Amino acid sequence: MTTTSTSGTRPDDVRRHNRAALLRRLHVDGPSTRASLATALGLNRSTIKALVDGLAEDGVVEERVPAQRSGAGRPSLLVLPQPQAAVVLAIDIRVERAAMALVGIGGQILGRDSWRARGSHGEPTEVFTKIMDYVGPLVAEQEVGPVAVGVSVPGVVRRSDGYVHEAPNLHWADVPLGGWLSHALKLPVHMGNDAELGAMAEHLRGIARGADDVVYLGVDVGVGGGVISNGVSLRGAGGHHIGEIGHMVVKPGGRPCYCGSRGCWETEIGERALCRALGIEEDSPVGAIVAELRALGESGDTVLAKLDEFVEWLALGLANVVNLLCPQLVVLGDLFTALPAPLVARVEKMVRERSLVSRALGGAKVATSKLGSDAKLLGAAELAFETVLSDW
Amino acid sequence: MTTTSTSGTRPDDVRRHNRAALLRRLHVDGPSTRASLATALGLNRSTIKALVDGLAEDGVVEERVPAQRSGAGRPSLLVLPQPQAAVVLAIDIRVERAAMALVGIGGQILGRDSWRARGSHGEPTEVFTKIMDYVGPLVAEQEVGPVAVGVSVPGVVRRSDGYVHEAPNLHWADVPLGGWLSHALKLPVHMGNDAELGAMAEHLRGIARGADDVVYLGVDVGVGGGVISNGVSLRGAGGHHIGEIGHMVVKPGGRPCYCGSRGCWETEIGERALCRALGIEEDSPVGAIVAELRALGESGDTVLAKLDEFVEWLALGLANVVNLLCPQLVVLGDLFTALPAPLVARVEKMVRERSLVSRALGGAKVATSKLGSDAKLLGAAELAFETVLSDW
Repeated sequence: MTTTSTSGTRPDDVRRHNRAALLRRLHVDGPSTRASLATALGLNRSTIKALVDGLAEDGVVEERVPAQRSGAGRPSLLVLPQPQAAVVLAIDIRVERAAMALVGIGGQILGRDSWRARGSHGEPTEVFTKIMDYVGPLVAEQEVGPVAVGVSVPGVVRRSDGYVHEAPNLHWADVPLGGWLSHALKLPVHMGNDAELGAMAEHLRGIARGADDVVYLGVDVGVGGGVISNGVSLRGAGGHHIGEIGHMVVKPGGRPCYCGSRGCWETEIGERALCRALGIEEDSPVGAIVAELRALGESGDTVLAKLDEFVEWLALGLANVVNLLCPQLVVLGDLFTALPAPLVARVEKMVRERSLVSRALGGAKVATSKLGSDAKLLGAAELAFETVLSDW
Repeated sequence: MTTTSTSGTRPDDVRRHNRAALLRRLHVDGPSTRASLATALGLNRSTIKALVDGLAEDGVVEERVPAQRSGAGRPSLLVLPQPQAAVVLAIDIRVERAAMALVGIGGQILGRDSWRARGSHGEPTEVFTKIMDYVGPLVAEQEVGPVAVGVSVPGVVRRSDGYVHEAPNLHWADVPLGGWLSHALKLPVHMGNDAELGAMAEHLRGIARGADDVVYLGVDVGVGGGVISNGVSLRGAGGHHIGEIGHMVVKPGGRPCYCGSRGCWETEIGERALCRALGIEEDSPVGAIVAELRALGESGDTVLAKLDEFVEWLALGLANVVNLLCPQLVVLGDLFTALPAPLVARVEKMVRERSLVSRALGGAKVATSKLGSDAKLLGAAELAFETVLSDW
């Protein structure tokens, strides 16, 4: 059903397209031989050589003879992306903390900083001011200027200009943060929903590499979902993010949720619910919750039993999501990264038993993130890189 | 992230690609002027002329001077697809009835037949035998032979060969129906999940035309969903259908569902639940349920109140779906086509109030299907046409 226009393709366009594709591949896959690039991109060796030579002249890649030679003949040169050649500023706004990083081509974090946010400065203008306070020193320290900015926000964000419609757990509504940042930083600013960016990072650099159909579950006080479908980010009407998974009602008439409904999934498995299940203060800092989960994990099945009800709600909601979207993999991110392995295995089994299509296919896998709390930060960087690399 | 390979494009490929695109457009949009085809496909007039001339020679299209002239100058010829030039056999297997139709290019139903299925012959082999009994006379009557077959099944179907993993409401498991049909009919057979095909038909020929992000809700005893995302059918892992929406648990600990869970959405809004809400026998025929709904619709708000609980469950589940997928439009199909308009308006309002992203964007629209019980049949035809037209 997709129509590819064959008109208007000029040699320049082709070269630009091929260069962007090559750069993107190096960015995502890391150092590659010319031979593997030729195979991956379906281009001949001389075209690859011309492209790589051009990028090397610009200082974007470097070529080396690989340390390990495979087979006979002249070794295929290894092409290495140069992280400093294009750097983006990634910002991850969370409820409790905010973080920023300078990320180079290839996804390497060159420098980072973070600050506490909860309580003291939740106001949008304060968050903006803090960002501006921290960015200068970070850039000075790394001695590289970013060429674009990516921002992750736990809420409903308009992609075109970074307007935050609603970010309930931050108590934000109608905040033109994207406009403020692009004006102040004089750089292109790209903003997205945190769970969507988490999914993107897991898909490109995390445990979901190579998986084309993935659901990412992020927990930052609230619960959000990001979906990769057939290898790309799934978007809703008007290109908006989807996956307001936390506000799926799973317990009609249950606890009131700030969204106006009752018995949302978030009220049963969100950060506060997890604290209740663990028997600790609802407002415990993330570090304390993680420590508690780690301790539980080491103390065996009997102690884990206290999480039974939490596990039931987690499995129930995930089965709903799997029934709706039929992913091959569900990634548990953020706080849930610390869930003990036997508990995750139990959830996986419960979800498989309850999901109709998925069980016919052998069941979806449920796994914890390896990127942990960096997923959304790295996703924000990828958002910025999308245009940086395609416009190279 | 999509890489378009620019290698291997030969003039023949381009012509074939353009011819398929033109034919597809005529099939979906109906008669079009050469000028509008040129604009829509981004091709110049002489290319369009050559393509149309070729198709006219083959008897696939006919050209006419349009009755109404617009503007000065030589009128652009109107290109009309010829339905009989390529006919497919569409089969819609439902719980209570099965239907088949011969459908021509442009989506016109040339002839149709149907038979009762519930009770007497639910066995897969009986359904297969019935199909074979009915197809001969239908083809003889229309004097056109189909070139491909599309089949809609309310279950989990493997696309590659039409193997039915599970069709719970038919009590089918592991039925190689696709194989039986292609062997017996000596035609390519394409099979899909009923709700997915319903969504496709609504998107191409129904109320969802022009809407890129759509959820279709089909009710044939059970409840299934189909999703159009960014203009194409959303698929899950391995290309399998998604949208096992009916088995989303909305009432933990509620009524047992045949799927093994309890409190599935289907048990609260499916055909039997609707019968209970209406105060009629749970196994009432579809016609009786529709008549009851129509009568209710004419008797005003006080009578409609008896459906309050049903409406609450319908809205609750739809809000979950909208929170997850952020469609611009939800189409209520099959039986739900007969839901009284004020009730649908109430559901739409309830869903908007409870959906986070969607309400920030003005809310998803909820509407009843105009194709009604033909949606899945027409969707099955479209499934067959996909390859027929692209391989032309």
